[in-house]
Amino acid sequence: KKRYTIAVLPGDGVGNEVIPVAVDALRLAASLEGLDLSFEELPIGGVALDLVGVPLPEETLTRAKQSDALLLGAVGWPKWDNNPKHLKPITALLQLRAGLQVFANLRPITVLPQLVDSTYLRKDTAEGVDLLIIRELTGGIYNALPRGFTTNEQGDEVGFCTESYSASEVDHIARVAFDIAKQRRGKLCSVDKATVLEGSMLWRKRVTAMASEYPEVEVSHLLIDTAAMDLVRHPRQFDTILTGVMFGDILSDLAAMIPGSVGLLPSAALGDSGPGIFEPVHGSAPKHYGKDTVNPMAAVLSAAMLLRYGLKEENAANRIEKAVSDVLDRGFRTRDIHTPGTTLVGCKRMGEEILRSL
Amino acid sequence: KKRYTIAVLPGDGVGNEVIPVAVDALRLAASLEGLDLSFEELPIGGVALDLVGVPLPEETLTRAKQSDALLLGAVGWPKWDNNPKHLKPITALLQLRAGLQVFANLRPITVLPQLVDSTYLRKDTAEGVDLLIIRELTGGIYNALPRGFTTNEQGDEVGFCTESYSASEVDHIARVAFDIAKQRRGKLCSVDKATVLEGSMLWRKRVTAMASEYPEVEVSHLLIDTAAMDLVRHPRQFDTILTGVMFGDILSDLAAMIPGSVGLLPSAALGDSGPGIFEPVHGSAPKHYGKDTVNPMAAVLSAAMLLRYGLKEENAANRIEKAVSDVLDRGFRTRDIHTPGTTLVGCKRMGEEILRSL
Ligand SMILES: CC(C)[C@H](C(=O)O)[C@@H](O)C(=O)O
Ligand SMILES: CC(C)[C@H](C(=O)O)[C@@H](O)C(=O)O
Repeated sequence: KKRYTIAVLPGDGVGNEVIPVAVDALRLAASLEGLDLSFEELPIGGVALDLVGVPLPEETLTRAKQSDALLLGAVGWPKWDNNPKHLKPITALLQLRAGLQVFANLRPITVLPQLVDSTYLRKDTAEGVDLLIIRELTGGIYNALPRGFTTNEQGDEVGFCTESYSASEVDHIARVAFDIAKQRRGKLCSVDKATVLEGSMLWRKRVTAMASEYPEVEVSHLLIDTAAMDLVRHPRQFDTILTGVMFGDILSDLAAMIPGSVGLLPSAALGDSGPGIFEPVHGSAPKHYGKDTVNPMAAVLSAAMLLRYGLKEENAANRIEKAVSDVLDRGFRTRDIHTPGTTLVGCKRMGEEILRSL
Repeated sequence: KKRYTIAVLPGDGVGNEVIPVAVDALRLAASLEGLDLSFEELPIGGVALDLVGVPLPEETLTRAKQSDALLLGAVGWPKWDNNPKHLKPITALLQLRAGLQVFANLRPITVLPQLVDSTYLRKDTAEGVDLLIIRELTGGIYNALPRGFTTNEQGDEVGFCTESYSASEVDHIARVAFDIAKQRRGKLCSVDKATVLEGSMLWRKRVTAMASEYPEVEVSHLLIDTAAMDLVRHPRQFDTILTGVMFGDILSDLAAMIPGSVGLLPSAALGDSGPGIFEPVHGSAPKHYGKDTVNPMAAVLSAAMLLRYGLKEENAANRIEKAVSDVLDRGFRTRDIHTPGTTLVGCKRMGEEILRSL
């Protein structure tokens, strides 16, 4: 019997509502496949600040490293918004990504046929969209040095940071993207701002160079401004999108408007080896916390990604994805995706229905 | 009789189709208001590269500085895509902005009732949108130093640049935004990535500080990823948006999807004194050039902005805007905004109809 240890980090806000649902689904899907999962809950974000005064306790990072995969909820809460940066909940995320060296962020955007009505775009635009955004996660403007605050010659306060990519950083993430694109529909679109940013110029050069190693992948390049437009006006043109940490943040949230709810979107953050981080993209959602109204599907689908990419347990992953689809077929909807003629349920009930479908 | 000199820079591609239309409209509207305009055509972009080997000839900059306002078409053409950066057509734009110190980029996004069907969003989402993006234009990641290419300790090539804002840069553009928001509907939304970028942290602090001077303006802050989502899911919430050079580039192109065509969108770039730059946002559009199919309205509406913000000739500006609306009422549409039941026309014919309406 294969055994795995999963580090569970619900974090703040609605993380505490959706992660228990995802853990239940994970446990059941795994046991149906004869896997033995054990779960270890670890504090992160605001919870950790309250507990030990830092957003990412050393103990959490150490144990996370020893696990086979991380299932993360969300971090952040208004209470800590005015903390200095190193004591903000979201700093835990950045530290965790760096600590685990998860440089490849995978954000699939799929419009399930049952949900085409919840799109914010036109229905005919959203129909059939199935794309994957691969975002570089440990370099670029989020991580490069130098950065900080200084005073210029005019005695003026300045906030600054560095946007940079090195050839090997680009190659590292581009390799992941080409390999995945090859297994998908063979189309890779790299997004940058090569007309202005030096890091983007190098980025485009390296992606172009690697393309010759993948004759079966059709490569294109878009500027970030055009990419943002194209995600809205004809998103079906996209298969795999490769981009940097900043543009990936923007594009993946923007792309969430295609299915119509961040409550549907899972993500994975992977390294070369070691455990990956699997988390819904929706954040801690202070406005919705405590009402049992949020959609646990993003977390549940993150659990499926955990099985597929983290543990290579494709069958168990498929079980979860099928269960989600089945629940939708049976007409259950949380508030974010509720449309006339479907049955409105809360987070917990949705969880129960997912287990039933499993 | 008031006299003004307008520097006309058609530039590349469709700039040469739309600018003549805009000049005609400008000339007629001005003469109807008893103004005396003279026009001086200057080379920029690819045209200038062909002519004198640089994208922004000194002569062009000098004469532009002596004018009362610039009417610009577009720069860029695939032929020069592989030029080194200082010999790329778009470098002319960056140099021109720096040379004229036009730090405030105004990009209005309006959904005219006649055009609500051409939106890429849902009709009920797009209806009534009337927002203005104010983008900082001469600082930030486009302009800050240091930037360039280097080799790191691992012998790895690195492309890098600096994202920075100083307190006085933020104050400079924020002042413009508060003053304009006050004259609009009194709502100002500042967009940044203050959770990650130091320049954004300072940006948010300064905007927050200035808010106390404008009790009549309601200020909010959004992260760029949320702002991108909100422009798609409820754009009517926005009145005036203030943001930096990079995020402004992305948001303004994205916002073009609300009216549904970049062919409708004018822009202005203003300094403290000296001439402003007025240009359609659509670029040189190689795919569409030479077919007489593009929409001259973005250029014509840029001419209206030139009258309003450049020459303070509000009445003449209103004439042009009314003429555009009238042509739409009369059912004429270029390809980009054509819908069943309207009359499809080319660029030239659209120009003639605008003159007729004037
Ligand atoms: C919280 C923030 C730092 C984070 C990011 O931008 O990476 C989040 O927006 C995300 O997309 O995962
Ligand atoms: C051509 C490019 C440098 C320019 C920019 O990003 O400023 C353009 O995209 C724009 O929006 O005016």
